[in-house]
Amino acid sequence: MKIAVMGYGTVGSGVVEVIETHNDIISSRTGGEPLEVARILDLRDFPNDPHRSIFTKNFNDILNDDEIKIVAETMGGINPAFDFTSKLLKKGKAVVTSNKELVAQKGLELLEAAEEGNTNYLFEASVGGGIPIIRPMTQCLAANHIEGIAGILNGTTNFILTKMIEEHMSFEDALCLAQANGYAEKDPTADIEGHDACRKVCILASLAFGKHVYPSQVATEGISNITLEDVAYISSVNGVIKLLGQIKYLSEDRIAAFVSPAVVYNGSQLASVRDVFNAILVRGDAVGDVCFYGRGAGKLPTASAVAADMVDCAKHVVRRKLFGWGAGAEDYVIDYRKHIEMPFYVRAKASGVAVKSAFSEVKFLSRKGQPSDETAFITDSMTENELMKKLDGFDVINIIKVTNY
Amino acid sequence: MKIAVMGYGTVGSGVVEVIETHNDIISSRTGGEPLEVARILDLRDFPNDPHRSIFTKNFNDILNDDEIKIVAETMGGINPAFDFTSKLLKKGKAVVTSNKELVAQKGLELLEAAEEGNTNYLFEASVGGGIPIIRPMTQCLAANHIEGIAGILNGTTNFILTKMIEEHMSFEDALCLAQANGYAEKDPTADIEGHDACRKVCILASLAFGKHVYPSQVATEGISNITLEDVAYISSVNGVIKLLGQIKYLSEDRIAAFVSPAVVYNGSQLASVRDVFNAILVRGDAVGDVCFYGRGAGKLPTASAVAADMVDCAKHVVRRKLFGWGAGAEDYVIDYRKHIEMPFYVRAKASGVAVKSAFSEVKFLSRKGQPSDETAFITDSMTENELMKKLDGFDVINIIKVTNY
Repeated sequence: MKIAVMGYGTVGSGVVEVIETHNDIISSRTGGEPLEVARILDLRDFPNDPHRSIFTKNFNDILNDDEIKIVAETMGGINPAFDFTSKLLKKGKAVVTSNKELVAQKGLELLEAAEEGNTNYLFEASVGGGIPIIRPMTQCLAANHIEGIAGILNGTTNFILTKMIEEHMSFEDALCLAQANGYAEKDPTADIEGHDACRKVCILASLAFGKHVYPSQVATEGISNITLEDVAYISSVNGVIKLLGQIKYLSEDRIAAFVSPAVVYNGSQLASVRDVFNAILVRGDAVGDVCFYGRGAGKLPTASAVAADMVDCAKHVVRRKLFGWGAGAEDYVIDYRKHIEMPFYVRAKASGVAVKSAFSEVKFLSRKGQPSDETAFITDSMTENELMKKLDGFDVINIIKVTNY
Repeated sequence: MKIAVMGYGTVGSGVVEVIETHNDIISSRTGGEPLEVARILDLRDFPNDPHRSIFTKNFNDILNDDEIKIVAETMGGINPAFDFTSKLLKKGKAVVTSNKELVAQKGLELLEAAEEGNTNYLFEASVGGGIPIIRPMTQCLAANHIEGIAGILNGTTNFILTKMIEEHMSFEDALCLAQANGYAEKDPTADIEGHDACRKVCILASLAFGKHVYPSQVATEGISNITLEDVAYISSVNGVIKLLGQIKYLSEDRIAAFVSPAVVYNGSQLASVRDVFNAILVRGDAVGDVCFYGRGAGKLPTASAVAADMVDCAKHVVRRKLFGWGAGAEDYVIDYRKHIEMPFYVRAKASGVAVKSAFSEVKFLSRKGQPSDETAFITDSMTENELMKKLDGFDVINIIKVTNY
């Protein structure tokens, strides 16, 4: 069966490699027919690449080739990926992608285009790279009411936090090391400010609860405010700081969804996720907590997930996979600050006495070298708005949510 | 769509409960049609059960009811589950099960019966209870050569080992506590001697590599020889003892598969799996290590996996899911003792000098209260047969494999 790849960057070239080196098992999985990479779309020249004869710069070479049944979109970004994907789907070609930005922004429209073309749009690789999460959640947990999801969804920030926690490296030094190792981009904003994790939260929430959640609806906070002082205080109560995407089901018409640093206590499966690894914990009413762990990025892990989606498309040429992903609404994602109660870690220039008079019950934390005018504590469960009211007048240095996962 | 449940024990009654309390989401997943429990087969009487009108003691009431399209087999055991399942599949009714003993022994024959009836035989619940593992492995990792699998596959033994490690409880006391908590049967043999884990290893190996592996082919060792002294020695090198099922791919025609206690070093995702939780780690050549974690047993977790398989059957009434599970061979599972190299933990009545003269390099371990004539150490990588040769003449107290997962 002929396929095409659009975008010959890290993931796209990985897809070609995985398909060509795994055609034996792919054939056995698809029922005998190997996948043949017939076209690669990229505007750049690759004069020394062994595939040079099948490169094209013209999208129509793929769109109008009736023999090409499945296309991998590994271009990234919204344009022209959206336009290309939309046209391919409407023409009945299956499209698989690792492009989380596109799925988070345009998933609903593209699934509707797939419906129009009676074909499949699959995106397992868009969340958690090679970690199986979309199929397990939509199929294996199909008989569960999902109550919540929490995930370490970005490898770069988890690497930085791991270095801060285990090697007492500063945020800046850890970021430099991540860049030196190729884990972080030159401009690391999308990772460290939580935008990448936010897109994955959108995709997970849309799939889990059937209504499109857009990145603009998800309150997002990155890790650049986290310091070694915070790490030390939280380590004193057997906790670690992780950048978590959290989703909570409230009712058919209301969910909460946010990305932020969060205190995770040791003992949680999420606490032991180190370095560039990702993990996604899903809480179902029948199954309890299930957790999926692995490499959330990287050429071959991500490519193998894209290739597995192609295998699935090859097995289901005529059938559409239903995700039950419908339109959302402006007020579907509520303001968690008003409605979600949780404990908070607070560090402030304040006396213990002042803290005690503002909060009825808190757990004080300590660290080596703690200045006498600095107080750190963990509050009882309350909303963030309630917390801010109590902290009115305090000289607050940092606030971090405490998760119950 | 009408369904039936055979066996109204813990899991079977859970399946009825999950279906009845989740029909809203089940309908949305199946494309609108709710599942209706039309018949329950059990030889016992349940005079006060609200479903009493649909109970039957006659299997033919299900077999010959053309409106029943999907049957959950939650009876357990080989007979009569095998006979019933075989007849249902050949008649074209889909069957889903949590019965690991039956799938491990008769999976191949039942998949062939499903082929004959052009229907599905699904068994997600047979490994890891509610943890999604079969779909993720067969679908999401379809573009990976699987190199190995290691799993904590039995909750009872993991509970006992957790109590030994964290609370220094003896094996006997921990077993009693597991029985008191309902985690272990009155006769705990199947759990503590590794037979339950062995069945799950058979199912995982058959699915991962496409050839049936039978329980008799898997060398199986339980945890009843593990003592607090072993726990202490291994804790001194930041390790824990877990009952692991391990599978290693060697070639198209040769795998290794065994169940035994194993030393897992902290830092591994498997080390932090506590209490009755299970975890399965799959190592793929492209994706690296992925790990699936959750409750491996229990009424509702297992029932929710059975129900999800029924949802899948309802969506695929006419299509057969292909697992590529074929016949095995007598010599397909090699003798790991001869062929698989790994480090070993050894505890013996011996002097350090004697150990040093028999082994070139070892790492000595120590514990509080260690008798002067007792030595414990971890060897270099070698086969178990080589180890036994070197240990000839030693008064060995215990040997535990060290895993590389």
